[in-house]
Amino acid sequence: MGGLQEIGKNITVFEYGQDIIVVDCGIAFPADDMLGIDLVIPDFSYLVNNKKRIRAVVVTHGHEDHIGSLPYLLRDIQCPIYATRLTLGLLDIKFKEHRLDKVETICVEAGQTVKIGGFSVEFIAVTHSIADSVGLAIKTPTATVVHTGDFKIDHTPVNGEHIDLQRFAELGKAGVDLFLCDSTNVEVPGYTMSERSVGAIFDQIFDNCANNRILVATFSSNIHRIQQIINSAVKHKRKVAVIGRSMVNTVGIAQELGYLTVPKRVMIEPSEINNFQDNQITIITTGSQGETMSALSRMALSGHKQVAIKPGDKVIISASSIPGNERAIGKVVDELFKKGADVVYEDLMNVHVSGHAKREELKIMHSLVKPKHFMPVHGEYRHLKMHKELAVEMGMNKENCFVMGLGEVLEVSKQSAKLNGNVQSGQIFVDGLGVGDVGNIVLRDRRHLSQDGLIVVVVTYEAATGEMLSGPDIISRGFVYVRESEELIDEAREIVKKSFYKCERENKYDWLRIKNAIRDELRDYMWNKTKRSPMILPVIVEI
Amino acid sequence: MGGLQEIGKNITVFEYGQDIIVVDCGIAFPADDMLGIDLVIPDFSYLVNNKKRIRAVVVTHGHEDHIGSLPYLLRDIQCPIYATRLTLGLLDIKFKEHRLDKVETICVEAGQTVKIGGFSVEFIAVTHSIADSVGLAIKTPTATVVHTGDFKIDHTPVNGEHIDLQRFAELGKAGVDLFLCDSTNVEVPGYTMSERSVGAIFDQIFDNCANNRILVATFSSNIHRIQQIINSAVKHKRKVAVIGRSMVNTVGIAQELGYLTVPKRVMIEPSEINNFQDNQITIITTGSQGETMSALSRMALSGHKQVAIKPGDKVIISASSIPGNERAIGKVVDELFKKGADVVYEDLMNVHVSGHAKREELKIMHSLVKPKHFMPVHGEYRHLKMHKELAVEMGMNKENCFVMGLGEVLEVSKQSAKLNGNVQSGQIFVDGLGVGDVGNIVLRDRRHLSQDGLIVVVVTYEAATGEMLSGPDIISRGFVYVRESEELIDEAREIVKKSFYKCERENKYDWLRIKNAIRDELRDYMWNKTKRSPMILPVIVEI
Repeated sequence: MGGLQEIGKNITVFEYGQDIIVVDCGIAFPADDMLGIDLVIPDFSYLVNNKKRIRAVVVTHGHEDHIGSLPYLLRDIQCPIYATRLTLGLLDIKFKEHRLDKVETICVEAGQTVKIGGFSVEFIAVTHSIADSVGLAIKTPTATVVHTGDFKIDHTPVNGEHIDLQRFAELGKAGVDLFLCDSTNVEVPGYTMSERSVGAIFDQIFDNCANNRILVATFSSNIHRIQQIINSAVKHKRKVAVIGRSMVNTVGIAQELGYLTVPKRVMIEPSEINNFQDNQITIITTGSQGETMSALSRMALSGHKQVAIKPGDKVIISASSIPGNERAIGKVVDELFKKGADVVYEDLMNVHVSGHAKREELKIMHSLVKPKHFMPVHGEYRHLKMHKELAVEMGMNKENCFVMGLGEVLEVSKQSAKLNGNVQSGQIFVDGLGVGDVGNIVLRDRRHLSQDGLIVVVVTYEAATGEMLSGPDIISRGFVYVRESEELIDEAREIVKKSFYKCERENKYDWLRIKNAIRDELRDYMWNKTKRSPMILPVIVEI
Repeated sequence: MGGLQEIGKNITVFEYGQDIIVVDCGIAFPADDMLGIDLVIPDFSYLVNNKKRIRAVVVTHGHEDHIGSLPYLLRDIQCPIYATRLTLGLLDIKFKEHRLDKVETICVEAGQTVKIGGFSVEFIAVTHSIADSVGLAIKTPTATVVHTGDFKIDHTPVNGEHIDLQRFAELGKAGVDLFLCDSTNVEVPGYTMSERSVGAIFDQIFDNCANNRILVATFSSNIHRIQQIINSAVKHKRKVAVIGRSMVNTVGIAQELGYLTVPKRVMIEPSEINNFQDNQITIITTGSQGETMSALSRMALSGHKQVAIKPGDKVIISASSIPGNERAIGKVVDELFKKGADVVYEDLMNVHVSGHAKREELKIMHSLVKPKHFMPVHGEYRHLKMHKELAVEMGMNKENCFVMGLGEVLEVSKQSAKLNGNVQSGQIFVDGLGVGDVGNIVLRDRRHLSQDGLIVVVVTYEAATGEMLSGPDIISRGFVYVRESEELIDEAREIVKKSFYKCERENKYDWLRIKNAIRDELRDYMWNKTKRSPMILPVIVEI
């Protein structure tokens, strides 16, 4: 195999001769300091520059961090998409939203092998927090690569679809040159519990809730979880209403494709909720991460059209907090409690299990695959590093493990694997309709504005006389509330006047110099008075 | 007793007749959406309006969330401060920073009882993550209140100072009318481990680190933790350097007051680090929360004057993440790993224990105190609510438990406790030098600016002719980078022109109307083109 590299969040490029295949194409969520950014997608330059060589995108499963950037990639390149049925169902929703109506998709299933250019790609069943997930065995005449995708080892999966451990073993026995393995949970000792264990907890909660409504917030993509909520509801003779756009979408597609089994007359519309007794109602909803505009947040804050939380409601938050969301979730939980709801979350009961393999599961996978070379994937740098250490503990040679940075290229053959340079990679910000037009300068300005606000100074003068004709006008936003700070603003006006006339006396008619002088003096003054540094925007109008 | 209320983060007001005492006076840290805010302090209006009646502030321990607002309160009121020796030591640093040089402080110790106005206040030893912590028994002729302060039950405290469980029992036996109890860890089952267990882990890490430097980041106020780091260092013949302003301050004061025992020739200056072998060095530092400007962050990003992380360094983050800091900490850990350090944190080894009682400890305290009435304190709403449920589970009457909102008043006597109205309370934002001058409008503007940036539009026209004399000038910040969006800005200019002349034609010479027209049309245009809504500031200059 030629080169192989990750060029963004969960997007890996495989090359052999003139052929390229792309595995997954995820989005990242913006970091705290990326103000106003909606999404972060990979820099696709390398792929766009080589678009003629791209034979396919192969997708392991339907989570946002594996498929979210695909519509952006498909703006620039055309190639077939290989994925399993549920994954394609979820992709279809995305393609429609992005008005991509001519995407060629090829439905595959676990166990199947397809030829794509010089590659053969085999799809291997794995268990994960979304149905129809696969790992991959990618072969060329010169090397075999095994890629787990996201996985856990669930021996009692909800849909009965087991992880094909035998196939991983068989591939390992035959010889795997490079192994790419999920690193998300490498920090966590032991095993991840089976998804089915959550079902037992749901039953217990439903058993103990004789008189009230039950609301469950979870990730919309977790079809197994949703199935188990529905199972508990059916067992307890409750109806199920689904609320939240993404939840409605995925439940719809999963039912349509047969991934969700719902007896007749169980599903009701949100508008029908009030036609039933409280103890006949289950509501499945989004908002498990405390997202401001999500259904659960709006229900908690009484801003939801159809459902308002009321005393006695049992709310189950069946999810773990994604780092960074803890405070938002805490706020929603507090609001729910204040409305009189009884809230159950991960800290209190095991209403969630992870979808990713913990240390002991990772070790099993390493023992089955026994690769020549290893490249940990999916995780922050510390996870990749720890995963390498786990492999070394298990007997791998340090030199055969590759913790790769974005854009780094690994050359793999039956004999060896070695780093071989870099390709262009990086993060592109998506904000509103714009892709990539929010750069570092714009972000820096937003950070500045968000900290101390701004002052706009408008000076109008007559070119002929050098006389200031009006103002200076001073407008502040996000700095001080002007009505309460008249004195400060009055003094600022004097300072601008002085500084303008000083420039004139010194015959500095250059606008840039005048602006700088005003900015500097005003900045010093404001800092001394307030210990804040608002952005200062001088505007000079010459008549 | 008359009224009793919490009016802010960990500040409780007790009243009896004409006397008021205040217990603790903490700061809160700003929520994610309080952009640019440094601190949040309580609204002191009620105390300021009653300043003649205030007899004392009584402080339970020296953590920021219990003492941080005191300097702000003391700007407006004068009264003696009662606290234990270490707490006063830490307060002294604060008073100096705030140039409060005439504060009357009274040093007390556990076991002691003082008369303050109509109150008698007894200080009771408790164990917590800072030395010299006390609970309180506050008595008036009409009622006895017991207040745990922050506490855990540590049977093997590092400094040998045990929690005085017997005294809590004795008070309970004699009759407690109202019990205020720490609720922080009410969600967590079981017992909190002893602080001493962390010392054993430190020893183990030091044992296994024969050749490298050891850096430990922890909370500067956790003197016991620091003592244990020093103990391990001494045992392993290592020197100790202390880095980070707050760490240097507290280690200094704790040594001076005898709360920290350090053999001679163990402490070295940061500048001396390079005079020793790596395996002779221990560095104790701040930054366990990933704070951008902290010593550890700067070391990780090579921005620290004296210490740069190098391969092999062992870094221990001996703290848990305060909710909201997870991503910042993750980023620092990743940077440390990238520099080649080996990082140990709570997820990997038990290098931290909590300072707060978990459920089983809370139950013990309830069993000892057996109060007539109960008011859970210290925690978010959900914690208070759950703590009430714990008390009810243990046999208390629901009606005798009070989950109080800020500013709510509880009337307590030997016969009864009941809610009795509200006093003014709330949050005041501290930003730069300003206290309270950042209000909701300013914050709303900052949020708007931080999401989509701004556009300033300057229109200058001649009053006599109605002719636009210059521009319109359009400036954008945090919205789009103008050089890359010339077309957008050119079109915007045309729209402003049209909308201005349209107003003129319709004889709308009212500035407000012109501004609104420009703002509306530009907003629509920008939303259609970019799906963003920058703040739009029209400035109209009339000549």
